[in-house]
Amino acid sequence: MKRVAVLGSTGSIGVQALDVLEGGGWGYYVPLLTCGRNIGLLRGQIKRFRPEAVAVLRKEDAEAVRREHPDVDVYHGEDGILEAIEKTDFEIAVNALVGISGLRPTMKLISKGRVRIALANKETLVTGGRIVMDSAAKAGVPILPVDSEHSAVLQALRGNGKNKIKRIILTASGGPFRGCTREQLETVSVKDALSHPNWAMGNKISIDSATMLNKAFEVIEAKWLYSVAPEKIDVLVHPQSIVHSIVEYDDGAMMAQLGSPDMKLPISYALTYPERRDAGARKLSAADMCSLTFEEPSAEARRALNLAYGVLRELAATSKDSPAIVLNGANEALVEMFLGGRIRFVDIVDILEKVINSHIPVRTMEIEDIIEIDLQARTDALRLAGLA
Amino acid sequence: MKRVAVLGSTGSIGVQALDVLEGGGWGYYVPLLTCGRNIGLLRGQIKRFRPEAVAVLRKEDAEAVRREHPDVDVYHGEDGILEAIEKTDFEIAVNALVGISGLRPTMKLISKGRVRIALANKETLVTGGRIVMDSAAKAGVPILPVDSEHSAVLQALRGNGKNKIKRIILTASGGPFRGCTREQLETVSVKDALSHPNWAMGNKISIDSATMLNKAFEVIEAKWLYSVAPEKIDVLVHPQSIVHSIVEYDDGAMMAQLGSPDMKLPISYALTYPERRDAGARKLSAADMCSLTFEEPSAEARRALNLAYGVLRELAATSKDSPAIVLNGANEALVEMFLGGRIRFVDIVDILEKVINSHIPVRTMEIEDIIEIDLQARTDALRLAGLA
Repeated sequence: MKRVAVLGSTGSIGVQALDVLEGGGWGYYVPLLTCGRNIGLLRGQIKRFRPEAVAVLRKEDAEAVRREHPDVDVYHGEDGILEAIEKTDFEIAVNALVGISGLRPTMKLISKGRVRIALANKETLVTGGRIVMDSAAKAGVPILPVDSEHSAVLQALRGNGKNKIKRIILTASGGPFRGCTREQLETVSVKDALSHPNWAMGNKISIDSATMLNKAFEVIEAKWLYSVAPEKIDVLVHPQSIVHSIVEYDDGAMMAQLGSPDMKLPISYALTYPERRDAGARKLSAADMCSLTFEEPSAEARRALNLAYGVLRELAATSKDSPAIVLNGANEALVEMFLGGRIRFVDIVDILEKVINSHIPVRTMEIEDIIEIDLQARTDALRLAGLA
Repeated sequence: MKRVAVLGSTGSIGVQALDVLEGGGWGYYVPLLTCGRNIGLLRGQIKRFRPEAVAVLRKEDAEAVRREHPDVDVYHGEDGILEAIEKTDFEIAVNALVGISGLRPTMKLISKGRVRIALANKETLVTGGRIVMDSAAKAGVPILPVDSEHSAVLQALRGNGKNKIKRIILTASGGPFRGCTREQLETVSVKDALSHPNWAMGNKISIDSATMLNKAFEVIEAKWLYSVAPEKIDVLVHPQSIVHSIVEYDDGAMMAQLGSPDMKLPISYALTYPERRDAGARKLSAADMCSLTFEEPSAEARRALNLAYGVLRELAATSKDSPAIVLNGANEALVEMFLGGRIRFVDIVDILEKVINSHIPVRTMEIEDIIEIDLQARTDALRLAGLA
């Protein structure tokens, strides 16, 4: 019987993680669920999983849940999640929180120790990569990636011991606007940008997929997860989303992981690694594989990716890691502005370039530095968007 | 310094294995070379590699080599190879012999012990699979596949411990006649059949690729190398020969190995496994991967493959392993007849079906049984071709 905490249980990955746990046929218990404001969904999850503890964002929601479930420990607020992590026992934590709010809980999990982190929260590594990986290594806490690309890389690295990596090739579907010109992108709507061709995902990550910022963040994540130099991380556009990523070795062999575009597969791999369990992900047929294509990213896509490579080059040259935090924070703010109809789609990358160019890189020492740089980046983004 | 014997050093794989050893930049010495009648090429190899011993087929060739190189131990005849294996010290043997003549040397290597066998000789496993694998397991002699498909499977299995294999998918280029109808195949020439679109190989294996018998033999080999049931071995036609094979696991993840169609890669992997060394195989570019296609084998291709599945079903049901020997022996004889212009291309599979249908399966007990069944199959093939 494994005890698995699910942080961010009402988001897209959280919901699928609970489905995997329920449907996988392996012994599990979910002692802790945390969510933001989606109390309606949380209520159903409490009935389904009977957790010992839950954490929610708002005090009034906490009080309501406490009245309905006097046997459940209910925490609230950002510190509430941390307290819930501290006081609840579990062996695996799925961190499916969205945005930089996932960073402190990751650090709390690491300091708690004796836990495996199945990490779906990209921002943890994009913003806190060095501090997080150093702390996790010291604490002996394994961090297993939940996104499909880094899970594929992990699978392709297995059994290769110290074999030299020539390249990690992250595949990208190219999103809904693959191959579009700048001119075409100028008029896209929020609805267009949310319509991903292959994956059903939350709003934030759908927009990031459309701008290619999602892939840019994955480039930064790959650096932290697999300790590779930026020039060894490549991106190839693969519109079918069947090959989830590739590792090329020095002998010229490439190991690739293929699967249907179904998050159940990387979620269950992170939970059971290095074993595999069938979590009910759809199986590929020969028809799914009839034609797999790969192409270099377009000039527009390159612009977003170059933001990540710039960040990593700065880091390699000077050890200053703040630009990644700025990129992430400004992007979060800009995506919200776009979803709110306050800026155009093309403004996201345009303004990001400006925010990054106006930022003076520093080296962070602790989580507080990260939070501060993140807030400043959001303010800068708002200002450069002409909205502050 | 590794001592590596190369059996069949003047054939296509033997020559490439020597190139890998010479070019790989890792310490090696080749104490033993063996070949058939290609003494001209062998002479050059003796000068290049300064082996302690060589074995050739004919007595007169042995005498000539002995006169030229009095410091080299020279053996001849089929027993000469066995004696050379017995008396020479080495840690790795590349068995790149062609046809069933590779079987006894493999058994000799196993009984000698303390050696890794890099096996390019398919017939060893197709005809002697059970006896060979049992003996190798008892002797603790590892058998590493040299062909690109089984090397890909081995690479895709690494790091998966006891994870359940759902399917092994062997890829097939489809050869020069991919998608051809029976009618079109009726008039193909020897030259047409030797023109493989992707791989430069010896004559025998080129014809086997054109008939799909090569893939049929690989299906049988996969059974022996990886202990999987016949229904778990699939074949997909992949004309680009970039994805060399795929292993699908129970969770739906597929691990694939990609590389340029260059035998240096699987040869060096068999030599250095589980490490990798760059042997100078051409590296894949994004352009090589621009479109990778997969399709089910055509009806004509299925006929050849079904011969292998029939053999494996018989084996699974009754433990009788002779049909694979018959398939291999009759095919060797028929390919010779085709290359000699005595039968048509389509006759190969037609007559193979007849030979298999007229054979009464038995279970072999020792290598002598295999040799006897093989000879009978050749006679039967000649008779059914109307040439005896």
